[in-house]
Amino acid sequence: MGKFKITFYPDNKTIEVEKGKTILSAAISAGVYINSSCGGDGVCGRCKVIVKRGQVVSQPSGRIKPEERKQGIYLACLTTIQSDLEVEIPAESRIDMDKLTQDEIDLRLKGLFSESEDVQAQESAGKEIFSHSPLATKLYLELPPPNLEDKISDLERLYRQIQRIREIPIMQTGLSNIRHLGELLRNSDWKVTVTLGKRNETTEIVLIEPGDTSVKNFGLAFDIGTTTISGQLVDLNNKKILGTKATYNKQASFGSDVITRIIYAQQQDGLEKLHHTVIDSMNQIIRELVKENNIDLNNVNCILCAGNTTMVHLLLKVDPTYIRKEPYIATANFVPTTRAAESGIKINPRGLLSCVPGVSSYVGGDITAGVLSCAIEDEEDLCLLIDVGTNGEVVLGSREFLISAAASAGPAFEGSGVACGVRAGRGAIQKVKIAAKTFEVSYDTIGKANPVGICGSGYIDILSGMLETGILDKDGKIKEISSKRIRDGENGREFVIVFKEDTASSSDIVISEVDIENIKRAKAAIYSAAITLVKHMELDFKDIKKIFIAGGFGTYLNIDNAIKIGLLPDLERERFIFVGNSSLAGARQILLSYEAMKRANEIARKMSYFELSTEVKYMDEYMAALFFPHTDLANFPSIKIK
Amino acid sequence: MGKFKITFYPDNKTIEVEKGKTILSAAISAGVYINSSCGGDGVCGRCKVIVKRGQVVSQPSGRIKPEERKQGIYLACLTTIQSDLEVEIPAESRIDMDKLTQDEIDLRLKGLFSESEDVQAQESAGKEIFSHSPLATKLYLELPPPNLEDKISDLERLYRQIQRIREIPIMQTGLSNIRHLGELLRNSDWKVTVTLGKRNETTEIVLIEPGDTSVKNFGLAFDIGTTTISGQLVDLNNKKILGTKATYNKQASFGSDVITRIIYAQQQDGLEKLHHTVIDSMNQIIRELVKENNIDLNNVNCILCAGNTTMVHLLLKVDPTYIRKEPYIATANFVPTTRAAESGIKINPRGLLSCVPGVSSYVGGDITAGVLSCAIEDEEDLCLLIDVGTNGEVVLGSREFLISAAASAGPAFEGSGVACGVRAGRGAIQKVKIAAKTFEVSYDTIGKANPVGICGSGYIDILSGMLETGILDKDGKIKEISSKRIRDGENGREFVIVFKEDTASSSDIVISEVDIENIKRAKAAIYSAAITLVKHMELDFKDIKKIFIAGGFGTYLNIDNAIKIGLLPDLERERFIFVGNSSLAGARQILLSYEAMKRANEIARKMSYFELSTEVKYMDEYMAALFFPHTDLANFPSIKIK
Repeated sequence: MGKFKITFYPDNKTIEVEKGKTILSAAISAGVYINSSCGGDGVCGRCKVIVKRGQVVSQPSGRIKPEERKQGIYLACLTTIQSDLEVEIPAESRIDMDKLTQDEIDLRLKGLFSESEDVQAQESAGKEIFSHSPLATKLYLELPPPNLEDKISDLERLYRQIQRIREIPIMQTGLSNIRHLGELLRNSDWKVTVTLGKRNETTEIVLIEPGDTSVKNFGLAFDIGTTTISGQLVDLNNKKILGTKATYNKQASFGSDVITRIIYAQQQDGLEKLHHTVIDSMNQIIRELVKENNIDLNNVNCILCAGNTTMVHLLLKVDPTYIRKEPYIATANFVPTTRAAESGIKINPRGLLSCVPGVSSYVGGDITAGVLSCAIEDEEDLCLLIDVGTNGEVVLGSREFLISAAASAGPAFEGSGVACGVRAGRGAIQKVKIAAKTFEVSYDTIGKANPVGICGSGYIDILSGMLETGILDKDGKIKEISSKRIRDGENGREFVIVFKEDTASSSDIVISEVDIENIKRAKAAIYSAAITLVKHMELDFKDIKKIFIAGGFGTYLNIDNAIKIGLLPDLERERFIFVGNSSLAGARQILLSYEAMKRANEIARKMSYFELSTEVKYMDEYMAALFFPHTDLANFPSIKIK
Repeated sequence: MGKFKITFYPDNKTIEVEKGKTILSAAISAGVYINSSCGGDGVCGRCKVIVKRGQVVSQPSGRIKPEERKQGIYLACLTTIQSDLEVEIPAESRIDMDKLTQDEIDLRLKGLFSESEDVQAQESAGKEIFSHSPLATKLYLELPPPNLEDKISDLERLYRQIQRIREIPIMQTGLSNIRHLGELLRNSDWKVTVTLGKRNETTEIVLIEPGDTSVKNFGLAFDIGTTTISGQLVDLNNKKILGTKATYNKQASFGSDVITRIIYAQQQDGLEKLHHTVIDSMNQIIRELVKENNIDLNNVNCILCAGNTTMVHLLLKVDPTYIRKEPYIATANFVPTTRAAESGIKINPRGLLSCVPGVSSYVGGDITAGVLSCAIEDEEDLCLLIDVGTNGEVVLGSREFLISAAASAGPAFEGSGVACGVRAGRGAIQKVKIAAKTFEVSYDTIGKANPVGICGSGYIDILSGMLETGILDKDGKIKEISSKRIRDGENGREFVIVFKEDTASSSDIVISEVDIENIKRAKAAIYSAAITLVKHMELDFKDIKKIFIAGGFGTYLNIDNAIKIGLLPDLERERFIFVGNSSLAGARQILLSYEAMKRANEIARKMSYFELSTEVKYMDEYMAALFFPHTDLANFPSIKIK
């Protein structure tokens, strides 16, 4: 069987593959990242490419319109290679490889401390901050040289000196550090710096360096999200945050949610590919942060990751298969601390990698970290944490108890599964107002760029506006009103947000009844998860004193509008607290404090997991929530329906 | 520069080396092991080879007699290669690569338990035996499969089940065991066997296997001696000894004592070569034992080594340089447990390697193991342990205290540094009687073979017989007596033990005044070390109730004769106890019991080290002991001097 050359534009990357392979598979091999929500099943229609030259065979797909086909547009996942090809990847099919702009990062990280001063401000405000005892600690030691009266061995001398400064019951050292210890100690005149790493309940001498290098001790906290990977470089000596970077999780090429990725992992080399993709993204962030701060990679001694259970499995190259098979069991919720190099992370070769423990297959370490950073387990008052993402995790609790659930909201709020949906990136419509009577639309886009589509917070504003102006009824149907913006489209009736003259893609940006249905299901899933937990504990929404809204999404959210569409419960607005990326914030706390790590372990052990999928009452609540805002308006006293 | 081919006979091994290299270095590269006590300095004269063909350049050496030169005999260490060569290695220069015969092993291991029955006999005799808790334990587990009510992760499920059986506070597992745990558990229907390894104060899940493999759990105890390496395969489940092998430590090619090996280690690749040599010997023993017992190497899960401090450094490839530089500091006396594969030992790839902790640079883990196996730290009565080897370690103590010293006896008792000395192998004269008046000599050789030389116990018998028959005076001079056996030789007066007609080498086997001087120094070093310790503690030899004699050497020793020459103190003969290879016996106890390991740690910590080399009183005692049996005959009341 012949091999063919495929060149991808605008990347201008060429790869040789066997006849019959799909274009999507060739793109992945070439390191060209194409959008794909469904994992290559031809369902989502997001992996459109233009074949400029050469022969292909493609399965028919309703996702490709006749006029698109004429332009040579195909779904990369359904199209096999039959000759040498030249393939163009249009902007809307690309996963933007560039990092987010600083503005976007700032927005996404709103609610996080950005400087050590802020940490101190928090401390003085009485918020509990854990003792400073980072995952990796450097100690400068001046050892008394041996003499005929003091003849203990070099390694014991090192241990003795450390124990004069720190109380460490169990210490261990790898052979590679011992092999040339004698020479190292003598060549450095008995003045060395040891890096001590916490490995579960023991302490390891990770590194021994000549002289005093104790000022150079850095680590990174990571939030490994299904969609976005965020990393933060921290000076472990003074808790100062030196920089934060976020990048899209390039695993999106293999499917937009964890289930499609788990399925992909079962393919030949699938796990390997998913693993390398997330590691590549992490290494890219590390490289950039280290470069910008003029730090030697060898002085980066540890990594602390929070992520959902599937992401942590893929990060560590642990087979995730059984997460999606009943009874949905993770291989490990508590993962031991390992050497970062074992997973391909490029920091100091002996540096450590630790992951925040998870609760279950669908409530992961990111939620544990979130609960930690919101200090819910210290609260006397009842709290609710809602992490609005593809999974839509909800935690209810206080110092008395913690209960969690995962709502399977679907990706609509992240701009997937909705026709004009985009992730919250440059050009995404994030804030929308609709004028009464005229139905004129005003909007803001991220980066003030020409609009490319609508992100989650934009959809919430649109639905709220449509309800308020009477365009939309409580069932989610667009009323028959005479307006140039209201018309019948391919997916039922639709409302035009931006006409093509003003869009980046030169096609109308619309919301259809099908989109509205998807969003309605997503908001119903989250709301009903929350109320099911509340009722399960024989409580009432009114008992909740603090509602923490987490997720990159949350930073744009208009609370009033989110309540109006029935996503959030109708409570006093001051009870809502934006916590931004609470997973990253929690990971950083753990990176900086062994006490916080022990607390995270306690939280993960204490938190129970409530399985919604087998709970009849959840289905009832879900059905009742499939209205705007809700079937039972008594739950939404502040909302007046026209 | 040209390369030349060197062929070694009788090995018939050929190697290509650069012009100018020494023959010794070429032999080492070719894997041909030649005797060499001095580490290649041309001093010991033990590396004689015959150049059959080709050109060499050799430095002159008093070790080569003119008639030897005529036969083409050179010292391999002083002779450089100038053309293609054919080199014959005569029998006396070879390190016998064959393992010892079973007879020899039996002799060497006399005093050891050889079957589990013996262990039980010891137990019932009231001798303390440690609880059965081997370095690696296998547990067969039948896990309850997960269901919607019991959803903890696979790893936690495994931990939970283990902790239902064993109380283990700190457990850890490597990533490689976690990565496919999910599949492994399900494919084996939740029935698996875990191998638990003690790693310092934590317990590691070393291995997880499907099904019940718990009956297959093996380990090896090793004594890594400067001259001999002994290994013992043990069934860790029932303590049964499955086999024992001993082989020469091929490091002898690089020098006969630890000092010359440390010096060699400082050469380019020296440490690497010494390390590989000892590992090769160990792997050879492991391979043979495993093969004879039909055991899969993957079921060998741990190795426990006792050795002197230098041997342990070389075994682990830890730089030993500072052991021989004042103030004589080891890199590590307490070495952490590591993976055996890290040091190149071929057992289960995840199997563990642990070493018995040592006391100081010159009192190593072999002595700790010896004290453990003699249970000195449990004795109410005062005990003395004498390990007669090149180092000549002495330990004095009881449950009250333990004090040790190293005597630098030199290798005379191991057949080195004495003209007709050989190691205790086939053909070595091990027992000798000299008839009064006629001075006729009767002897036994190991393996009843034709005599090749005299080993340590043979020399003791000879000296004792010479003193008794009046041939030798108390200064160590051979008297002027008319006998065909007494004559003047190259090294002063000599006494012929076997005439060449009856020897394997067709040359006379003799003992000269120079040899006698060397042995006198060796015995004086050991005796004076013992008496210095005794006096230092303000005690008397008479206070000692048990004298343990250890070392392969000890198994042949005639106690009466050893007292007669002043090697051992003159005490009631029933106080002397042969313990054979007490180092190997102690290593096996530790392999089989974590309690014994903790005890060994206590012993190594408790035992003080007395530095003889800087002690004036030791020099006085040594000078006083340079007579047969001693200057002060009051110390030897049972000896009548003619």
